[in-house]
Amino acid sequence: MTGFDLDRARAETPGCASVVHFNNAGAGLMPRPVIDAIRHHLDLEITTGGYEAAAANAPAVERAYGALAQLLNGRPDEIALIENATRAWDMAFYALARTFRPGDRIVTAEAEYASNYVAYLQAARDTGVTIDVVPSDDTGALSVDALAAMMDARVKLIAITHVPTNGGLVNPAAAVGAVARTWDVPYLLDACQSAGQMPLDVARIGCTMLSGTGRKYLRGPRGTGFLWVRADWIERLDPPMVDLKAATWDRRNHYVLRPDARRFENWESFVAGRAGLAAAVDYALGWGLEAIEARIATLAARLRDGLAALPGVTVTDLGDRPCGIVTFTHDRLSAEAVRAALAGRGINVSVSKRSSTRLDMERRGLPNVVRASVHYYNSEDEVDRMLAELSAL
Amino acid sequence: MTGFDLDRARAETPGCASVVHFNNAGAGLMPRPVIDAIRHHLDLEITTGGYEAAAANAPAVERAYGALAQLLNGRPDEIALIENATRAWDMAFYALARTFRPGDRIVTAEAEYASNYVAYLQAARDTGVTIDVVPSDDTGALSVDALAAMMDARVKLIAITHVPTNGGLVNPAAAVGAVARTWDVPYLLDACQSAGQMPLDVARIGCTMLSGTGRKYLRGPRGTGFLWVRADWIERLDPPMVDLKAATWDRRNHYVLRPDARRFENWESFVAGRAGLAAAVDYALGWGLEAIEARIATLAARLRDGLAALPGVTVTDLGDRPCGIVTFTHDRLSAEAVRAALAGRGINVSVSKRSSTRLDMERRGLPNVVRASVHYYNSEDEVDRMLAELSAL
Repeated sequence: MTGFDLDRARAETPGCASVVHFNNAGAGLMPRPVIDAIRHHLDLEITTGGYEAAAANAPAVERAYGALAQLLNGRPDEIALIENATRAWDMAFYALARTFRPGDRIVTAEAEYASNYVAYLQAARDTGVTIDVVPSDDTGALSVDALAAMMDARVKLIAITHVPTNGGLVNPAAAVGAVARTWDVPYLLDACQSAGQMPLDVARIGCTMLSGTGRKYLRGPRGTGFLWVRADWIERLDPPMVDLKAATWDRRNHYVLRPDARRFENWESFVAGRAGLAAAVDYALGWGLEAIEARIATLAARLRDGLAALPGVTVTDLGDRPCGIVTFTHDRLSAEAVRAALAGRGINVSVSKRSSTRLDMERRGLPNVVRASVHYYNSEDEVDRMLAELSAL
Repeated sequence: MTGFDLDRARAETPGCASVVHFNNAGAGLMPRPVIDAIRHHLDLEITTGGYEAAAANAPAVERAYGALAQLLNGRPDEIALIENATRAWDMAFYALARTFRPGDRIVTAEAEYASNYVAYLQAARDTGVTIDVVPSDDTGALSVDALAAMMDARVKLIAITHVPTNGGLVNPAAAVGAVARTWDVPYLLDACQSAGQMPLDVARIGCTMLSGTGRKYLRGPRGTGFLWVRADWIERLDPPMVDLKAATWDRRNHYVLRPDARRFENWESFVAGRAGLAAAVDYALGWGLEAIEARIATLAARLRDGLAALPGVTVTDLGDRPCGIVTFTHDRLSAEAVRAALAGRGINVSVSKRSSTRLDMERRGLPNVVRASVHYYNSEDEVDRMLAELSAL
């Protein structure tokens, strides 16, 4: 890649020495600065105590707010650090769900993730809200025209996954945001697979809330996630759970919620992970999200083109400008068998299950698929090696 | 201590070389096996990937369920691993709160922790449930007689903190359990400060649900917690949040919750922390909870006696058999000033805030208090050194 310092990226990624890692949509390999940040904090905990370490290393931990604000073009006080993307999304969704009434509508997309969809189903049972799924366009993306045609005053939430788990697709987040703005409806964007993979600008997207994880394309530690809530929406949302971090017990029968997004947090956390997350975001910002996205697109195209040329292999990705998540089926081998065979050859891929994005997979008649998710630190040689191994199966 | 191998305990605790740690009620110093378990798992993540490490190290991670079941005298399928004690408690409390109706009652204790109490207040506002506080007896513990007298058919939950955060007290958990059983009422025990400090037997206590943390007396990593739910109650509780770990999205408009306690979990976690938690519980079991409790009682008595003999220092602990959490006030210095002064001399203590246990602290007219929480690996010399430093302030 012109201008992309692959040698540096790989040298700063210890895992590159031992494995070909195409499971970045599961968890990316952590780079040296993230590893160092985690280890440094754990060492402080070991030698000085857990709370004492948090106090001594507060600037590195607190940096997570500023770094994420920078990543998203938001404000630090709009950021909540939460143990993972699911619970981050939950804190926003279930806060809104408190306000749903029978006849209200949630609008979502066909490739919505199972964790979100089962939460919709639970809310539908409890509140009488209905779930309306926007049809996809010819490319497999949410159809913005269809969304616009479905809107009415009963829609109380638009919630979609930016980059679905099962291949290629990048939903038109900003076009959806324009519709949400027109109708003045809260818009919750699940950016679990897009954060760290491409630029994210909440002002440009026009979302009200955005959730993400540290462990995937941001290459941060497992057990870290975040929620961004637009300033004017924070105090409109009553957290589904509160504790002494979210609220101050100021009188016997009274508490006051924090005015900032930390009302969605709780007191205890994997503090070393927060320092690692801060380092991961700063590291991504150092490379630049545009450069990361471009590098990933190049590698993913090489992988897709190679897969398409293999007999018996069918690429199952959607979208007119597919991202770094590449999925495929094999005509003789199950997805699990392909995954295991490649694992035996030192190549990490994963399996994207039908039950994880049921609406889309059923519509397309797809079984479980193999998922190979590339990142900027992967090399062209690694892609070619995977293609060679696959053709020999 | 007769029979207690203090030298081994200290040799296996690297932090003992650099600090006098009396903040075990905040976070205990991690012993070598816990540190090794965390580092080993993180190293696997670094070299093989986050998901691949979880698969390769599954027995060590899964051991957390068996170890906690052993610690509590429960069953592994009654254990949920949750990111911390607060969210563990929340998963049980807010599940029950879904069922509260106006006129229902929550019964709790005077020394209840702020995080729990603000959740009661939120539920009271949302559901019309009332919060009834059991008076304390002469020792400062929840009065079991008063509790028994307050019970009626409208009580839908007994929820108390086993060992309150602000000093000495161990509430009579098993006697409360007998009352709960008589009335067939769910009983949620917050064991955040007792787990790892003393034996906990859910059958003997008679609770329905018990929450705890890894980081305090169990000496595990920050960002780990657990919930135990008695087998016959698991399927009666609808989790307040669900995801694809808690539920399987089996048909377009349908999901099935897991039948075991993992319905209270969610997919993503600090996996290395789970391995560390398993090691921490096994390490505690290796010492034996009776031996740990006895050793802590001896050290705490030495500290309390020494404090009581210091001019201007007032011990503020409750309970007729006080535990390892020792609190006091100083007649010239604020709690924060004492904490800072001792920190400057290499001694870690903490401050227990009035707003953390407001009902009890207001009743007793207490300001913030200094909290020195001892563990079995602390030495008599450390206690004496703290007393000497304190007397010189």
